[in-house]
Amino acid sequence: MRQAKLAQRVAGIEPFHVMDILARARALESQGRRVIHMEIGEPDFPTPPAIVEAGIAALKSGHTHYTQATGLPALRQAIAESYSSVARPSAHRVIVTPGASGALALTFAALLDPGAEVLLADPGYPCNRQLVHLFGGVARSVPVDAASDYQLTAEMIRMHWSPRTVAVLLASPSNPTGTLVSDVELARIVHTVSELGGTLIVDEIYHGLTYGVDARSALAHSPDVFIVNSFSKYYGMTGWRLGWLVVPEPYVDAVDRLAQNVFLAPSTPAQHAALLAFDPEVHKELERRRAIFAERRDYLLPALRALGFGIPVTPRGAFYLYANCSAFTTDSEAFARELLDVSGVALTPGIDFGVHKPEQHVRFSYATELANLREGVRRIAAHLQR
Amino acid sequence: MRQAKLAQRVAGIEPFHVMDILARARALESQGRRVIHMEIGEPDFPTPPAIVEAGIAALKSGHTHYTQATGLPALRQAIAESYSSVARPSAHRVIVTPGASGALALTFAALLDPGAEVLLADPGYPCNRQLVHLFGGVARSVPVDAASDYQLTAEMIRMHWSPRTVAVLLASPSNPTGTLVSDVELARIVHTVSELGGTLIVDEIYHGLTYGVDARSALAHSPDVFIVNSFSKYYGMTGWRLGWLVVPEPYVDAVDRLAQNVFLAPSTPAQHAALLAFDPEVHKELERRRAIFAERRDYLLPALRALGFGIPVTPRGAFYLYANCSAFTTDSEAFARELLDVSGVALTPGIDFGVHKPEQHVRFSYATELANLREGVRRIAAHLQR
Repeated sequence: MRQAKLAQRVAGIEPFHVMDILARARALESQGRRVIHMEIGEPDFPTPPAIVEAGIAALKSGHTHYTQATGLPALRQAIAESYSSVARPSAHRVIVTPGASGALALTFAALLDPGAEVLLADPGYPCNRQLVHLFGGVARSVPVDAASDYQLTAEMIRMHWSPRTVAVLLASPSNPTGTLVSDVELARIVHTVSELGGTLIVDEIYHGLTYGVDARSALAHSPDVFIVNSFSKYYGMTGWRLGWLVVPEPYVDAVDRLAQNVFLAPSTPAQHAALLAFDPEVHKELERRRAIFAERRDYLLPALRALGFGIPVTPRGAFYLYANCSAFTTDSEAFARELLDVSGVALTPGIDFGVHKPEQHVRFSYATELANLREGVRRIAAHLQR
Repeated sequence: MRQAKLAQRVAGIEPFHVMDILARARALESQGRRVIHMEIGEPDFPTPPAIVEAGIAALKSGHTHYTQATGLPALRQAIAESYSSVARPSAHRVIVTPGASGALALTFAALLDPGAEVLLADPGYPCNRQLVHLFGGVARSVPVDAASDYQLTAEMIRMHWSPRTVAVLLASPSNPTGTLVSDVELARIVHTVSELGGTLIVDEIYHGLTYGVDARSALAHSPDVFIVNSFSKYYGMTGWRLGWLVVPEPYVDAVDRLAQNVFLAPSTPAQHAALLAFDPEVHKELERRRAIFAERRDYLLPALRALGFGIPVTPRGAFYLYANCSAFTTDSEAFARELLDVSGVALTPGIDFGVHKPEQHVRFSYATELANLREGVRRIAAHLQR
């Protein structure tokens, strides 16, 4: 057997460290141990029944052939109409994609020439950086902390802009920090990126999952932004792999051509199912779930702070808390591994999210029931007092 | 509104000309005209009922969450076992992907550094070339004709190899020509590419759809090839967007990491449905369909030849005939447009498949009922006698 001759880009792609945590957790469980999962990055709720029923009905009706590369016209229309009137794009600008991953791939394929730089926050979702590299770009990570709610600001963007910078990627709410870019700052960023001649991309996949606040789409500030969104998180459709991209009008044709070549079309049954995602009854169920996530955050945040974890900014979205654990360790990865092995609580170490002080941080997910969170906190408390 | 600032790669991506044909066909149909569709690139059969039922059962059982990035272990196992004993890979080497597009994307991401060349046949499936470009590679099209069954040969590969060549992509059966690489030539190619220090990638998505012959997987010749396959064509699952990749052992970990970052996971309901694809009863149904495709080819091939189309090699797979139309025109695209407008028959012009004599060729698809094919031939005959 011959040795692998890998492209250079592959060397830069680390496996997610949480995969090791997950594998260890499964191993412990197979030995009969009960593990509290606070490392998981997907909602614990199943897809709402009405959406599932729509998927089943589509299959029964024989909707198993390709759709247009940009998606079913009715779904593009429904997505467009889901935006508030100040932000609403024409359906023509909405491209249905295989997950937010597909939307980001199209975006970077459309925007990035070799060596083109994209600014993004560190800590941040690791796949976004990898996708930039995959399409020949350079991901320029800008360290962020509590002072800016773990988000980029217009000022930082101006400061880190180089002649090779072509785009900025925001994620609001952010994974791993759960924090939002304020509407005021978002307006400044839109203005700044435009002035600098770049393109703003906003990952809004956790929209809908915000607590005590509603996140406004960046589309409310400009039609010139790229918006990445997904049916995975708020709509509970992770396994269906369906997302969307809203592109500025001048990019529609190019992105359509790219979609035809990159993935031909998004899943047909998933698209038919997603038509029910905007149904008023489904909306009620999704808002009920949102209230449950809010309740979990309201329990977990003060509980972790009381234990000595540093969470200086109140996270208002997604289902994550990004916590400074330097009161207990200088190596968050070893801390996470020990917490799992000794006390059966699984977390994601900071290293999965960047190079800016990852050893001081862990990510808690509250995509698990309140009872589990309580048991997790009890175990962590006991673990820390050993 | 600002002008689009597109990456250079986008300029190189032409829209599929068949999309224009399709749009014109739909327009004619909306005026009440009946169009014979011989331009379509997907089977006219729906997904076999047992597979659909398995998808429905999966949804009813709540299988709506992510799976592993590389796919359900049971599905990887079932795919591995679907290969004959001489070709069978370990399940570990099978990566489930969002369609063959996803499999090719992973392959090129793993193999191509900027400027790396991939040899492929012209005419050939256009998305393959575009995906090479998308990942920074250079698609080197090698003109092929009837003398080599419209396929690359070991000799051509040796002749066109350059210091920058890293891989060869075969498609057997081929879209648009329906021809296969013979098993003897395949063995030579495997040997030659290995000797040259490159990697062989074989697109086997039309395996199963061969007539009077069984296509042997390139895995029978070497464990060092990349195999791209799909549930779309033989298994009739186009809209589900599910394919797979078999990688050489040394590439498994890298491709797993890429999959985690590029698309997270393939569709969960589709994977559960595909578990039924290898069921003996489904196999019977698929073989029945295969016989129907054979019957259509056996009608259409002599009928077109009798009309004066040049089809020098008997196509033994897929559902396409690539026909020389230079007896009737010097511009196959204009010919296709006129045939549609005047006589209501839709074909795909050669230009969608490359730059090697496209103006002399059109592609006929027989993914439509025999009665439609007969009517199409009748109309074409009348059209040519005007």
